[in-house]
Amino acid sequence: MAWDVTLDDVEAIAIGAGVLGTGGGGNTYLGRVRLARELRLHNAPCHIIDVDNLPDNAVICAVSGMGAPTVGIEKLASGNELENAVRRLSEYLHAPIEALIIGEIGGSNAIEPLITGLRLGLPVVDGDAMGRAFPELQMDTFSIGGVSPSPMALGDAHGNVVIFDHIDTPLRAEEYARNLTIEMGGSSGLVMPMMTGKQVKQFIIRGTLSLAHKLGQVVLSSRRRAIDPAEAVAAAANGRVLFTGKIVDLYRRTTKGFARGYMKITSFSDDSDHMEIEFQNENLIARHNGSLVCTVPDLITLLLFEDGEPIGTESLRYGLRVSVLGMPAPEELKTDAALEVVGPTAFGYEDVPFKPLPGDLRAGSSPVPMHHL
Amino acid sequence: MAWDVTLDDVEAIAIGAGVLGTGGGGNTYLGRVRLARELRLHNAPCHIIDVDNLPDNAVICAVSGMGAPTVGIEKLASGNELENAVRRLSEYLHAPIEALIIGEIGGSNAIEPLITGLRLGLPVVDGDAMGRAFPELQMDTFSIGGVSPSPMALGDAHGNVVIFDHIDTPLRAEEYARNLTIEMGGSSGLVMPMMTGKQVKQFIIRGTLSLAHKLGQVVLSSRRRAIDPAEAVAAAANGRVLFTGKIVDLYRRTTKGFARGYMKITSFSDDSDHMEIEFQNENLIARHNGSLVCTVPDLITLLLFEDGEPIGTESLRYGLRVSVLGMPAPEELKTDAALEVVGPTAFGYEDVPFKPLPGDLRAGSSPVPMHHL
Repeated sequence: MAWDVTLDDVEAIAIGAGVLGTGGGGNTYLGRVRLARELRLHNAPCHIIDVDNLPDNAVICAVSGMGAPTVGIEKLASGNELENAVRRLSEYLHAPIEALIIGEIGGSNAIEPLITGLRLGLPVVDGDAMGRAFPELQMDTFSIGGVSPSPMALGDAHGNVVIFDHIDTPLRAEEYARNLTIEMGGSSGLVMPMMTGKQVKQFIIRGTLSLAHKLGQVVLSSRRRAIDPAEAVAAAANGRVLFTGKIVDLYRRTTKGFARGYMKITSFSDDSDHMEIEFQNENLIARHNGSLVCTVPDLITLLLFEDGEPIGTESLRYGLRVSVLGMPAPEELKTDAALEVVGPTAFGYEDVPFKPLPGDLRAGSSPVPMHHL
Repeated sequence: MAWDVTLDDVEAIAIGAGVLGTGGGGNTYLGRVRLARELRLHNAPCHIIDVDNLPDNAVICAVSGMGAPTVGIEKLASGNELENAVRRLSEYLHAPIEALIIGEIGGSNAIEPLITGLRLGLPVVDGDAMGRAFPELQMDTFSIGGVSPSPMALGDAHGNVVIFDHIDTPLRAEEYARNLTIEMGGSSGLVMPMMTGKQVKQFIIRGTLSLAHKLGQVVLSSRRRAIDPAEAVAAAANGRVLFTGKIVDLYRRTTKGFARGYMKITSFSDDSDHMEIEFQNENLIARHNGSLVCTVPDLITLLLFEDGEPIGTESLRYGLRVSVLGMPAPEELKTDAALEVVGPTAFGYEDVPFKPLPGDLRAGSSPVPMHHL
């Protein structure tokens, strides 16, 4: 289904992208402000198209921001990173790009492709390659499916563009691009992979921009109806509320291009009842009183207890009152091949098994009908 | 003057390049073995051409290895890094490359372009952009003259090639390429800058491959005639022997992509008479009993006391008996614009003035006539 993103949709998409961001993907408040500005500037909506309407031979690229979310809130984007990188890569290939793919639907990375689409006059496909946010670039369904990482492009805030002409493996692409991103000041615009329409149809996780929109609407609706936003989102995303409480301990460090850390949350009513969460840009592992309750690739997202606003790992602080949501990853991330790249062991948790929450987050309850909002 | 490099020239060029390398540019023994192998494989010489015979509109690129010399002796080159990078950059520009320029004449970087020229069937121009070796890529006469650093290409040992499509300043090119080189394992093949024949004629330091050949011949000749090789090279390079003694202290660390360190040499006859030398890949500053006697961009090179073999900073060790040579930099490196980029302050020595040795190392005495060898 084709649809348009207008100013009216910005808040819902930003909140929903925050929910799917599992702490990462970039600060959605900044993304939201930038998208609203861009929509006003262009005085036109951003066109969203259905993946199945892409011609098989269309030339398409995915776009996203690269870097630690803790950097993104201090070093603001120049705004041209992705636009420059897409233009240069297109010139390099002597092939006009026909549509953009959202590299990851989590955090402001759901929003950057819309901004880039507006600037370049390109439609954006409803779907993405992660169904959430992940910290590393090889952790996407295109790479898992065997799409070559190169040619790819990285743009910095000064207008510089680096093209990775030939790269042998997705992991090497991650290592080289991460390193260059650090040197670029900790954030960059990443254009990869280049694909045909046929490849996109084969590997994309469908409908995740619509899903973000729906989850954002659920949060906004719950605020207006004064019901618990966490429970409402859990129902809409086929998940559950894992814990509710106050952040009482937080260790966070920006190192090697990532925001890494750990937090402890204790129950409002009982100090000994607690949840511990470890993260690398994104929340990876949640333990309740020492027992594993949710692990990557399932989604672990913190919402502000009061109003359901999702909280990125860059915004965590002592004393925040939060609900912790667990949501089942899309089926595409739970194949054996995918779990090798995005399961707990891929993040160094050798002894942590993946015990999936049942289902797929896209199979949650329907969104609140529009007239209820 | 056009000439050919054959197997008979390899040893002299390698030794002379070591003399001009001032400790850096890469281990010349390895370069020498590789060039000899390549000449045997191709069963043809490498063609050296005079810069003034280049058409003004010829498309030319400079090539060199990037990385710390301490890495180069442990992680051997795959041998394809530069060849791949030149090919890809040429494809990227849709322009056949017509000749190669030696990026820096010091160390094995004098030799790599000859190997690449043999592999690609391209002639190599007699001259380079440094007249010696320098640790950073913006420290060359092309950058100083204002030639754009991009497009440029970096190749790794796995066949991967990264193209820097647009880079705003030479310093940024250095930062990005250095970082990526570290991630590539500490060494890479660098192709930059792209130039026209006209630009090359304007900015190249002429005749430095012939100079390396001549200085190597002088060392070889001095061995056969049992005269002091250091004094012979000093005369041939318009320089002087700054000190002779034994290395008694050495601090060397490979950090941030460079071999950085310090050494102390004491006189054979008097322990209190000493020279201290600081280096960053290349020898930068020499002090004799605390007094400054030679600084970058003038050349400071260590030769083995016994046979005049030049010693790279990767090969320094306690107890080596050495002569320290000081040689005046080419005039091209002593303009105000050049000294900003390659003078002591450019290396962080804020309080160290550049007191040039008189002259230009190319104005030394003539080489030993061939029949004396």
